[in-house]
Amino acid sequence: MELQPILWVIPIAGLAAIAFAIYLAWDVLRADTGTVAMQDIAGTIYEGAVAFIRRQYQTIGILAIGGTVVIGLVITLVEGREVADTQYFGLDLGWRTGLAFLVGAACSMASGIIGMLISVKANLRTAAAAQHSLVRAVQVAMRGGAVSGFLVVALSLLGVFGIFAAFGGFTNPEEAPFLIVGFGFGASFVALFAQLGGGIYTKAADVGADLVGKVEAGIPEDDPRNAAVVADLVGDNVGDCAGRGADLFESTAAENIGAMILGVAVWRIAVELGWPNPEAWIFFPLVVRGFGLLATIVAMFFVRGREDENPMNMLNRGYWVTTLLSVAGLALTTYVMMGTGTDLPDNGIPAWVWFFGAGIVGLTTSVAFVYITQYYTAGSFRPVREIAEASKTGPATNIISGTAVGFETTAVTAITIGIALFASFTLGSQAGLINEAGDNVGGIFGTAVATMGMLMTTAFILAMDTFGPITDNAGGIAEFSKAEAKAREITDRLDAVGNTTKALTKGYAIASASLAAFLLFSAYIDKVNLILERQIDAGIREAGTLLESVDLANVNVFIAALLGAMLVYFFSSLAIRAVGTAAQAIIVEVRRQFREMPGIMDYTQRPDYARVVDITTRAALRQMILPGTVAVATPIIVGLLLGHEAVAGMLMVGTIAGVLLATVLNNGGGAWDNAKKYIESGQLKDENGIVLGKGSDAHAAAVVGDTVGDPFKDTAGPSLHVLVKLLATITLVLAPLFIR
Amino acid sequence: MELQPILWVIPIAGLAAIAFAIYLAWDVLRADTGTVAMQDIAGTIYEGAVAFIRRQYQTIGILAIGGTVVIGLVITLVEGREVADTQYFGLDLGWRTGLAFLVGAACSMASGIIGMLISVKANLRTAAAAQHSLVRAVQVAMRGGAVSGFLVVALSLLGVFGIFAAFGGFTNPEEAPFLIVGFGFGASFVALFAQLGGGIYTKAADVGADLVGKVEAGIPEDDPRNAAVVADLVGDNVGDCAGRGADLFESTAAENIGAMILGVAVWRIAVELGWPNPEAWIFFPLVVRGFGLLATIVAMFFVRGREDENPMNMLNRGYWVTTLLSVAGLALTTYVMMGTGTDLPDNGIPAWVWFFGAGIVGLTTSVAFVYITQYYTAGSFRPVREIAEASKTGPATNIISGTAVGFETTAVTAITIGIALFASFTLGSQAGLINEAGDNVGGIFGTAVATMGMLMTTAFILAMDTFGPITDNAGGIAEFSKAEAKAREITDRLDAVGNTTKALTKGYAIASASLAAFLLFSAYIDKVNLILERQIDAGIREAGTLLESVDLANVNVFIAALLGAMLVYFFSSLAIRAVGTAAQAIIVEVRRQFREMPGIMDYTQRPDYARVVDITTRAALRQMILPGTVAVATPIIVGLLLGHEAVAGMLMVGTIAGVLLATVLNNGGGAWDNAKKYIESGQLKDENGIVLGKGSDAHAAAVVGDTVGDPFKDTAGPSLHVLVKLLATITLVLAPLFIR
Repeated sequence: MELQPILWVIPIAGLAAIAFAIYLAWDVLRADTGTVAMQDIAGTIYEGAVAFIRRQYQTIGILAIGGTVVIGLVITLVEGREVADTQYFGLDLGWRTGLAFLVGAACSMASGIIGMLISVKANLRTAAAAQHSLVRAVQVAMRGGAVSGFLVVALSLLGVFGIFAAFGGFTNPEEAPFLIVGFGFGASFVALFAQLGGGIYTKAADVGADLVGKVEAGIPEDDPRNAAVVADLVGDNVGDCAGRGADLFESTAAENIGAMILGVAVWRIAVELGWPNPEAWIFFPLVVRGFGLLATIVAMFFVRGREDENPMNMLNRGYWVTTLLSVAGLALTTYVMMGTGTDLPDNGIPAWVWFFGAGIVGLTTSVAFVYITQYYTAGSFRPVREIAEASKTGPATNIISGTAVGFETTAVTAITIGIALFASFTLGSQAGLINEAGDNVGGIFGTAVATMGMLMTTAFILAMDTFGPITDNAGGIAEFSKAEAKAREITDRLDAVGNTTKALTKGYAIASASLAAFLLFSAYIDKVNLILERQIDAGIREAGTLLESVDLANVNVFIAALLGAMLVYFFSSLAIRAVGTAAQAIIVEVRRQFREMPGIMDYTQRPDYARVVDITTRAALRQMILPGTVAVATPIIVGLLLGHEAVAGMLMVGTIAGVLLATVLNNGGGAWDNAKKYIESGQLKDENGIVLGKGSDAHAAAVVGDTVGDPFKDTAGPSLHVLVKLLATITLVLAPLFIR
Repeated sequence: MELQPILWVIPIAGLAAIAFAIYLAWDVLRADTGTVAMQDIAGTIYEGAVAFIRRQYQTIGILAIGGTVVIGLVITLVEGREVADTQYFGLDLGWRTGLAFLVGAACSMASGIIGMLISVKANLRTAAAAQHSLVRAVQVAMRGGAVSGFLVVALSLLGVFGIFAAFGGFTNPEEAPFLIVGFGFGASFVALFAQLGGGIYTKAADVGADLVGKVEAGIPEDDPRNAAVVADLVGDNVGDCAGRGADLFESTAAENIGAMILGVAVWRIAVELGWPNPEAWIFFPLVVRGFGLLATIVAMFFVRGREDENPMNMLNRGYWVTTLLSVAGLALTTYVMMGTGTDLPDNGIPAWVWFFGAGIVGLTTSVAFVYITQYYTAGSFRPVREIAEASKTGPATNIISGTAVGFETTAVTAITIGIALFASFTLGSQAGLINEAGDNVGGIFGTAVATMGMLMTTAFILAMDTFGPITDNAGGIAEFSKAEAKAREITDRLDAVGNTTKALTKGYAIASASLAAFLLFSAYIDKVNLILERQIDAGIREAGTLLESVDLANVNVFIAALLGAMLVYFFSSLAIRAVGTAAQAIIVEVRRQFREMPGIMDYTQRPDYARVVDITTRAALRQMILPGTVAVATPIIVGLLLGHEAVAGMLMVGTIAGVLLATVLNNGGGAWDNAKKYIESGQLKDENGIVLGKGSDAHAAAVVGDTVGDPFKDTAGPSLHVLVKLLATITLVLAPLFIR
């Protein structure tokens, strides 16, 4: 097989991104580390974060090794039903899947750990830079975040590419995509526990610190006398930073593999019709993501500006450069990989143009979600103002109003996703990819291209996201170390921008999960039919029993769909409750410190920060096990009881329900948060025009809403993103088990 | 056609129930009407209720007449695509559907209006009876409620039977079920606006009265100085009583019609195989419901007890008598109607036994939901205690905990429904109902029989439900009229029982909606295929294009499913927001009265109750239009854009999402309510064993949760029940419009 030179983009972009991440890490680490007081508190945060990460990834590592063995055994045992005809590394399918799972898990863990270690170094350096220059502080924070962004995307790209090559991607490109689904499952598995553990940690610390400090002891937020405050700062890193990194690692990996599986259907047509480079359709997702990485590297140099500029503008400049260069990369990739030698469809416009259009739909969707999220969660628009107004009549009306806003956000989300799916499907189905049986596979491939278009900007989005916890921490360090006013003023401005970027990433993650849902669902059907075909060929199954449709009118499918929709509520319930339980442990410990160490209150005794960090760590890790187990076990049980068609219904309806509930939780939480900030900034006035600011009853009501929103938007919501993709990868991997 | 004598049960039971309702109404009206003070306030409530009902049903009546014309025109216009071969009343299908719609709407309105008028008479008489005897008070309240219960079920039975007979049910029983779907749509249409308007009214008045009275002016709940308190008492009647009546009217009607449509498939087999009385399979739902009515009449005489007994026991006694007699009626009906002359299935057990089993599954499911609801919303169990405990750390943790409980309740709900569907489907499919093409239609008919079994107890459940607002009002009247202590003590006990029965009915309504979902969905597919078959026969459609499956892997079906799940959130958002907007109008008016009528506070001036009632009425009616329109328009738009298969996906996934969200809202709201009551009853203690009762911070936090739960459980949740069934009836009626 003669390969197109454009495939070189994959390793080159992946390695370039890693090299660039190393350069950025070096650049961050060499920066000024500020005053001794800053270094002191930063050191404490660093230690806490490392302690948590060590324990958490030990736990996850053990679970992952257990998972590898179970998957290897199970797939090997049921493999008698499938007919494996290719062997790599002398392993049969079960152990190959297990190995892919382990590599996926390891890559995800590596990118999470390294990225987070840099982040907890970047926070101190951002605080230090803030003493002198806004632009420099933005650059340090953004570069620190970009280390995560580049590592996550590059390791996911190189990991998928590597395992694909190792399992025969260059010799049997039509087989290999099915052999590497374990990689996506490994990534999802790690992401589930990373996001759950981190999400529970961060919000338990946040809620615990607020309740025991602000409410009970009556001391301000971020006060050094409150031993839970350091745990709170640690939490920002392990939840927002490591959690979201793992989330987007699995997104890029799973969606990439799903798109490659759909590419196999196009490969068949290309082979039938004798087009050159049929394997291009399978390699396409890897190449286009490579161009996305290159675009992001260039864009990093555009994150700059004037000292008096809104920092958000500097980030936006980089984002737009990434997007525009991605459009160029997309055009080049579609032209080179889909433009040569394909037959012209009846409409006379070549296939690559249609797929370029589909990719543009994906890029546009991600931009649309950025603005939708801003509208619903930023202070200057109707929804947040409405919640702030409702706070005037107390916490109850604040909560009712925030719930109504959260529910409302599903409308524009669902409609946007619906339009994006419809548009990319329609564009793809014009491309003339019709197989001998007369099926048009272009539509589904169009949704895959749209998803890949969207994923081109992931590294930049993730850098902006990690910018959030870094600047949040920098603010905490400045506060804690009693830094000069200028530094605090700059870190406050960065913190506000960080809140926006964190919300945007959640919108982006949701959009990619929903766009990918249809694609992964189709990949599942392709995988099931591949197994069924082999069983039919081997004579152990009747002909004509392929999975032609997932029929909601089948009672088993309906029941599975009902259980899928239920799962997202039940899982969220467990995640939310876990925060409460873990927070309780923190409150008890801080109360004990206040009681037994009377010197804390007059600053003569240093609170035992490490003990609270340790207690939070243990509580968070204990609490992540139940929701994690429920998430993994439910699809398996449903699949075993109700079969392979039913589990597809569960996957599909569970995804729809999960995406919408996550939207409600993320946007409702974000709007509550910003309604509080809106009031704090003095924008709410009573009927006589008097400002209702900090300390007013309306502000107290808004604080209740903010606290309620915390576990919604930072624990349950993000964990749902992961759950949705876990459903897809677990069913893809365990499909042989569910076939009846 | 020679008809079975058992069919006489239908008119006899229907007319007997109406006669019994008249007797009960007479019995209630002749009861003692208490003191002048009681009559005074009761008169004010009565006037307010009548004023609201008049305006509301005028609005609904106009909408219904408009709906009739639109449906008549639309179906007539698209009928060219269907081939109507039977004409009744000289009308074509369009106008027959319109007429059925109008009759359904009129029956629903009549039962709602009459039932509510008796309820607002029964409240005064319950308060009067409470001066002397607990048992007598229970009986007056229960009989007042039973007037609604019997009227709703009897009018739905006689209405469906009458329009069925009028459209040729005795001559063409296999055609007529499809011609009467308009009746169900009419009932849903009225229910949607009755529940929305009533739900918004009752909670706007409740929230408004609390905020302006308890929070702002610092006067107690139900204080006569607060002009909104009368509106609150009126609201109990128009929301809980008229709203739930309309809800269950449409349930019984729509599910009955759906079951008859599925009966047609069995009728075909019975004709094929030459079984006697093939029409029995179509008439079965009507007959079994007739027996349910008779069982309920008998059971009413068992609602009695000792003066020192828990009133809940008296109601439970009646409920169990209804259930046991229903089992007997079910056995008789299945034996007579399904036991004669059918071929024995291979398993050797006759068909009627299997369907008797399926009916038992339905009855058992309704009992299971009664206990599940009690567990999640009653004070003595873990969930409510958990919320009460969380109230110790303030309103935020109260809300977080209640949300977690609400989400959690979906698990047991979905699993119970899943088991019920699976069991009734499996039992039905053993009955040997296999047509010539080899399809086993017994499974789906099994789910229909289960639904009918469940509906046998509807009249008693509805009587218990209406017991709630009557006793709630009786308590308010006793409070307002400063009745003696004994009367207040008895009305308090009744009120507590009424809160439980209101929660139980919601559980029952949800269970019936979910069990019926699958049945109505199958009826939709049957209806679509009937139209498609006729088009194929008429040569205007290709053969082989029947709707064989609703395929989630079809992109249009997926998009419609996503929009269906979104609709339930968006609709709930509008309903919740409507309560806030209407409450705001009430608050402004009461504030004005406090300001401009200074005599109110020292009891020298009577507040203007009527004006608040009027303002609430207008606000509620204005606010119900937007959510109502969204509910009706969305399925139509989706059907027109995406076609008949997609709209089936929307119906199914919308139903799943709606049932689960309603579960969350109802149970979450109920649990918050009872957590407050748990604290008020002095059961919550701090770590030192000191009671945290009324007036404590924990109580204040629990009041916030209760207020948040109000619009969830009494406006949005119940409106979702209606929405779910509206989706089913609107798609059934407008199916011809969506076919492509």
